[in-house]
Amino acid sequence: MLGSGFIGRFYADSIQAHRSKDKIVSVYSRREQSARKFAEDYDVPHWTTEMEAAVNHPDVDMVCIALPNNLHEAAVMACVKAKKAVITTKPLGRNAEEAKRMLEAVEKAGIFNGYLEDLCYTPKFLKTLESVQGGALGRILWAKSRETHPGPHSEWFWDLEQAGGGCILDLGCHCVEISRNYIGKDIKPIEVMCWAETQVKPIPAEDHAIALVKYENGAIGQFEVSWTFRGGLDLRDEVMGTEGTVWVNNFLRTGLEMFTSGKGAHYVAEKAESNTGWLFPVGDELADLGYNHMFTDMFNACDEGREPRETFYDGYVVNAVLDAAYRSAKSRQWEPVKLEIWRGREGVQQESTLTDYDDQYYLIKEEVIHDGRTKVILKDKQSGKVIEKVTA
Amino acid sequence: MLGSGFIGRFYADSIQAHRSKDKIVSVYSRREQSARKFAEDYDVPHWTTEMEAAVNHPDVDMVCIALPNNLHEAAVMACVKAKKAVITTKPLGRNAEEAKRMLEAVEKAGIFNGYLEDLCYTPKFLKTLESVQGGALGRILWAKSRETHPGPHSEWFWDLEQAGGGCILDLGCHCVEISRNYIGKDIKPIEVMCWAETQVKPIPAEDHAIALVKYENGAIGQFEVSWTFRGGLDLRDEVMGTEGTVWVNNFLRTGLEMFTSGKGAHYVAEKAESNTGWLFPVGDELADLGYNHMFTDMFNACDEGREPRETFYDGYVVNAVLDAAYRSAKSRQWEPVKLEIWRGREGVQQESTLTDYDDQYYLIKEEVIHDGRTKVILKDKQSGKVIEKVTA
Amino acid sequence: MLGSGFIGRFYADSIQAHRSKDKIVSVYSRREQSARKFAEDYDVPHWTTEMEAAVNHPDVDMVCIALPNNLHEAAVMACVKAKKAVITTKPLGRNAEEAKRMLEAVEKAGIFNGYLEDLCYTPKFLKTLESVQGGALGRILWAKSRETHPGPHSEWFWDLEQAGGGCILDLGCHCVEISRNYIGKDIKPIEVMCWAETQVKPIPAEDHAIALVKYENGAIGQFEVSWTFRGGLDLRDEVMGTEGTVWVNNFLRTGLEMFTSGKGAHYVAEKAESNTGWLFPVGDELADLGYNHMFTDMFNACDEGREPRETFYDGYVVNAVLDAAYRSAKSRQWEPVKLEIWRGREGVQQESTLTDYDDQYYLIKEEVIHDGRTKVILKDKQSGKVIEKVTA
Amino acid sequence: MLGSGFIGRFYADSIQAHRSKDKIVSVYSRREQSARKFAEDYDVPHWTTEMEAAVNHPDVDMVCIALPNNLHEAAVMACVKAKKAVITTKPLGRNAEEAKRMLEAVEKAGIFNGYLEDLCYTPKFLKTLESVQGGALGRILWAKSRETHPGPHSEWFWDLEQAGGGCILDLGCHCVEISRNYIGKDIKPIEVMCWAETQVKPIPAEDHAIALVKYENGAIGQFEVSWTFRGGLDLRDEVMGTEGTVWVNNFLRTGLEMFTSGKGAHYVAEKAESNTGWLFPVGDELADLGYNHMFTDMFNACDEGREPRETFYDGYVVNAVLDAAYRSAKSRQWEPVKLEIWRGREGVQQESTLTDYDDQYYLIKEEVIHDGRTKVILKDKQSGKVIEKVTA
Repeated sequence: MLGSGFIGRFYADSIQAHRSKDKIVSVYSRREQSARKFAEDYDVPHWTTEMEAAVNHPDVDMVCIALPNNLHEAAVMACVKAKKAVITTKPLGRNAEEAKRMLEAVEKAGIFNGYLEDLCYTPKFLKTLESVQGGALGRILWAKSRETHPGPHSEWFWDLEQAGGGCILDLGCHCVEISRNYIGKDIKPIEVMCWAETQVKPIPAEDHAIALVKYENGAIGQFEVSWTFRGGLDLRDEVMGTEGTVWVNNFLRTGLEMFTSGKGAHYVAEKAESNTGWLFPVGDELADLGYNHMFTDMFNACDEGREPRETFYDGYVVNAVLDAAYRSAKSRQWEPVKLEIWRGREGVQQESTLTDYDDQYYLIKEEVIHDGRTKVILKDKQSGKVIEKVTA
Repeated sequence: MLGSGFIGRFYADSIQAHRSKDKIVSVYSRREQSARKFAEDYDVPHWTTEMEAAVNHPDVDMVCIALPNNLHEAAVMACVKAKKAVITTKPLGRNAEEAKRMLEAVEKAGIFNGYLEDLCYTPKFLKTLESVQGGALGRILWAKSRETHPGPHSEWFWDLEQAGGGCILDLGCHCVEISRNYIGKDIKPIEVMCWAETQVKPIPAEDHAIALVKYENGAIGQFEVSWTFRGGLDLRDEVMGTEGTVWVNNFLRTGLEMFTSGKGAHYVAEKAESNTGWLFPVGDELADLGYNHMFTDMFNACDEGREPRETFYDGYVVNAVLDAAYRSAKSRQWEPVKLEIWRGREGVQQESTLTDYDDQYYLIKEEVIHDGRTKVILKDKQSGKVIEKVTA
Repeated sequence: MLGSGFIGRFYADSIQAHRSKDKIVSVYSRREQSARKFAEDYDVPHWTTEMEAAVNHPDVDMVCIALPNNLHEAAVMACVKAKKAVITTKPLGRNAEEAKRMLEAVEKAGIFNGYLEDLCYTPKFLKTLESVQGGALGRILWAKSRETHPGPHSEWFWDLEQAGGGCILDLGCHCVEISRNYIGKDIKPIEVMCWAETQVKPIPAEDHAIALVKYENGAIGQFEVSWTFRGGLDLRDEVMGTEGTVWVNNFLRTGLEMFTSGKGAHYVAEKAESNTGWLFPVGDELADLGYNHMFTDMFNACDEGREPRETFYDGYVVNAVLDAAYRSAKSRQWEPVKLEIWRGREGVQQESTLTDYDDQYYLIKEEVIHDGRTKVILKDKQSGKVIEKVTA
Repeated sequence: MLGSGFIGRFYADSIQAHRSKDKIVSVYSRREQSARKFAEDYDVPHWTTEMEAAVNHPDVDMVCIALPNNLHEAAVMACVKAKKAVITTKPLGRNAEEAKRMLEAVEKAGIFNGYLEDLCYTPKFLKTLESVQGGALGRILWAKSRETHPGPHSEWFWDLEQAGGGCILDLGCHCVEISRNYIGKDIKPIEVMCWAETQVKPIPAEDHAIALVKYENGAIGQFEVSWTFRGGLDLRDEVMGTEGTVWVNNFLRTGLEMFTSGKGAHYVAEKAESNTGWLFPVGDELADLGYNHMFTDMFNACDEGREPRETFYDGYVVNAVLDAAYRSAKSRQWEPVKLEIWRGREGVQQESTLTDYDDQYYLIKEEVIHDGRTKVILKDKQSGKVIEKVTA
């Protein structure tokens, strides 16, 4: 385990959760005190302040990177050198260039690589994706993902050099990969339009952004991200298809609602802003945030010699989309997604939108009206004229 | 009442609702059969297929326009000529040019004018607006409004000439005015970025669109509109401010949830798509869609010689914003909102985002952590360096 | 208007709401200051501290009683004497004996009488009742109503002599009439089992109670009432039938959710307990609590010479059920509902519960299983043996 | 694993979930085909149709009983004989007599025993219990648990001899133990009042029941159980305390909402009744139903030589409460809970309900009113007179 901060602890809690046979055998931290404390808390036999010492430790089969964004590349390269399997927290790089170097390095070295995109492993996401892939929503038209909260926990997020960006990079990386899964990972993201601003925080990076991502088949992805949201951690996805709709709420409304006058107050949930009044705790944060399912997939994939659901390649695609978002926020225009590596389909057309009603008409809409009869709105194939017709 | 269709009937139901002292005295429809039927159903003493006959009827004090978009201007001009008070369904015009002519005409004539923007009168909207104006959310950063459903009821909506546009004009007009109210009607909308596409329906107009509207004070408005949504009528607003958040759901989740195997099936709600399984009816559509509060304001305003909450001027501003949205969807760039008439504030700056922590630092974030202590993230005023500090 | 307190003001707000043609012409209060203030606030031309002066005022067509429970009977008798139409707040009497005297008096006098059971007029209730009566839920098996909050506003509620009881009488009266409507007003309530206790408040009356009400057709009514609930005003109904289910939430979850840090704090809703953190205001309390629809029905009924939906007779039945609840709480047994006046059906049997599957079997259950096939559970008509069978 | 049916498979899915080091080594089923299939599906090395062969298998450290209720005792006795650790599905026995024999046998044999009450292990339950025990709700006044669905999957549930009862035994066992945890496992359940009826199904056992369970400290437990509910699996708990309220929804409203026209239809969730329209799938049924946390506790407890959270003793107490419920449903009276073995506290009094306001008054209620001032309702300690006072 490289890193012993907030996210490293979340990972450790998950990896060693329940009746797991997996074990953290070495931990690296830049700060001795932090490394030692982590080792104690998680019963880790070896700790160090030298990254290579952890990576090269003989008992280590797989390296888990839980470091600030600007340290990912060096850590990955250490794994490449040591030929150790590697899994990395999100985002993969601070930009596509970094990500591409990491991708090429691990593939050249032939080592197992996993991208720790936990929100593509939440139970609700997996269940929904299965429905979407089964056709329950028809052709996907729009896939929005939203992550907003009052700002990250650790100081390095707020430093542009270490973080590489603001909430677009920190939160948008989740959203882009969520949308991409729903629309289809083999469908190419083409271009991005992004608005970003620093509305509240005294920082150079953006603290609020909204972007649209156009896919080759005409579907539209969207993200809404913010470090200025008040009320807790808002993690919601919405997907619209020709046959259905999905609303996913991963955190703030999950079926547990508590009112308390404040007696016996205590920790409620990650990024909760209050511990009195109406509160919305989550039952099991690790499970609801996808950590359990994510590590299960990573370790099983490695054992079985297959790719996990999320790889460095996915991390690279996400970075390329986010790069376009940053360019767009500056240029105020749609910016192309520059993908030097692309392994999905090419040239996918938007499906035809014409539904035949009969020889003369296309069907625009069919609806049951007040009195129980059915009304259709039709378009003449020749003249283009629109008419309505009520049938029993 | 000019118009006897779907919306005219909703209006009539509201105007003559409960113990109202107001009465529809004449109805005009282009089709005799429809006019006659409306007159019977609502006990209206006079009906006609000549618009002027209705407008000029001596018992008519106020004219209510419930006609397709392309007939608004002619109807307004008839009222101007007759010097009758006039209220018009939304949108005011098919574009800002039409809207401006109507605005100038009614103001020159000195007649009462009201813009029937019902969604700015829903009970939830009014309650929320009061909270927002009272400061419960602090400075407004983002105001999103979403209206999506499976497409309108009447054939003229689907005809570009009559409607003047697709879902942007039909639904976006609501959303723009909702956002504008939350952000402040005196704050100028500056520019618009819009994505619009015809994803499903065999029509020349857009059936799905998303747009961002930038306001002079740095706030961002957003609309999401669609005629391709599956699942009913989705009417939701979300507002984020520096001190709070509001989520409004006007239709699909209002506290009434019914499961039925389908026995005794009947009408559930406007644009509901199913009458078996889990259903979410609304208790009183007229009230929940704002019609009762809207007409109360319109008639009281007229009686008291004051302006209603929503006037032709507001309708004109909305049209100007939508015109910019249409231009942006084509040019793929941010497009300026062209407001030849503007009565709000000018030159409003974004508020400073710096909060002093002490002499040396700005405050970035304050948070209660697991163990109950408080952590602050601070920025050095001179060096810009970010640090974190945990205090008891 | 007899009474100028909390409920009188709610009534006045509703009666004179929107564009109402109805007008309060006289107000009586026991306290001069309160009467005068009410008259000012609602623009009432006449006020008095003599009840008869209000009742007999020549402009008064209908008397609305909004007084503590122990004063209802005297007020009704004054109306009887004056032969004025009368509507009374809930509960009708402190017990069935009082209620019966009032019922007999108004009927003997032949005056219009209405029972102001507002929760049987909420938009959600009316919509649901229509569905239930249309058969959407099949045969009703269970109808629960819950009203709990942190305790009433005025001091007289807490005084046993004036109130006549605790939360059973104050809140249970709503619940009983709600259940009765869903199960069918013509179905006789037979017996009641009630638990009641004073768990928190320093009062002789009960502050928490739960009761079951058995109806002649085998349906079960239930109420849960409390003056010790924390979190606001909880108004929920649940109805189960053979074909469906309804969940109604009238107050705490109606689609309006607000988080606020507490800046700009103000009144949120009746009996809300907090004005920071997550809040759940209602848009229009008067409408959502049923006042508008209730007075519309009362006044229209009187104008049209018909009975309103809720009459003194209904109030009497409710009191008889509550009397049985109080007896049961003491005797710890099911207690019969004593109805000396009963105008519904008699001798209604429970419907047979046997559904034929084929000649040999009754159907117990049918279910779609994982693999998409259908499983039925059947009971042999002769042997009673239960088997399961999976069919394509 | 004894049993290879619906619940046995749920257990196997959980036990071998994620990266578990635990393994099922032998499976027993009464039907050879079922045993063989289970062994294949879960990669179990040994299967048998002889119960003792499974129990005595040398690789078996712990026996998991997943059999119909009437077979629990024999299976437990086989474990006792073999001195193997044993965990049993709920309910422990068909009645307290059976449960007591099992409890005494395992304790006499000194073997590890666990009671598989999964709903006392759901993530939401564990989180809520922690809050309740931390005092966030103050003194618990009422703890209700509701489990209703359209009826069980397997035919033996519908047979009175095998099942030992209807929905009270099948579902009430969950509810009783949930309430007991919230109120305090050391607080004695004293007496039960129960209504039970066969409203719909052609069976001798009850298909719908409601009961109240009185605890020695004045708290009230409640259960609502039914096999006739329409709409899915309804699993909800509500807890009221002097300082707060909790609403838990484990299944039908957990933040995942899907509308589908029915294309691509497939399995949604346990006991879901529909696969079109609005659906409410759960993300991860095993996790949300508590199975993962339950087996983790069971196996860890056994490894650590400690008791698990839920033991045979708890199962016995639950059976004793349910026995009282069945007696009450017949006698129509409150029936005492007969606990020959009781290990909690005795003679716990209800806490005093008097809160001092000052020397003269007790506080009844404090409330913020419309204008922002505070109103208190007070009771004179001497005279008992109730007054109200408004303070700034």
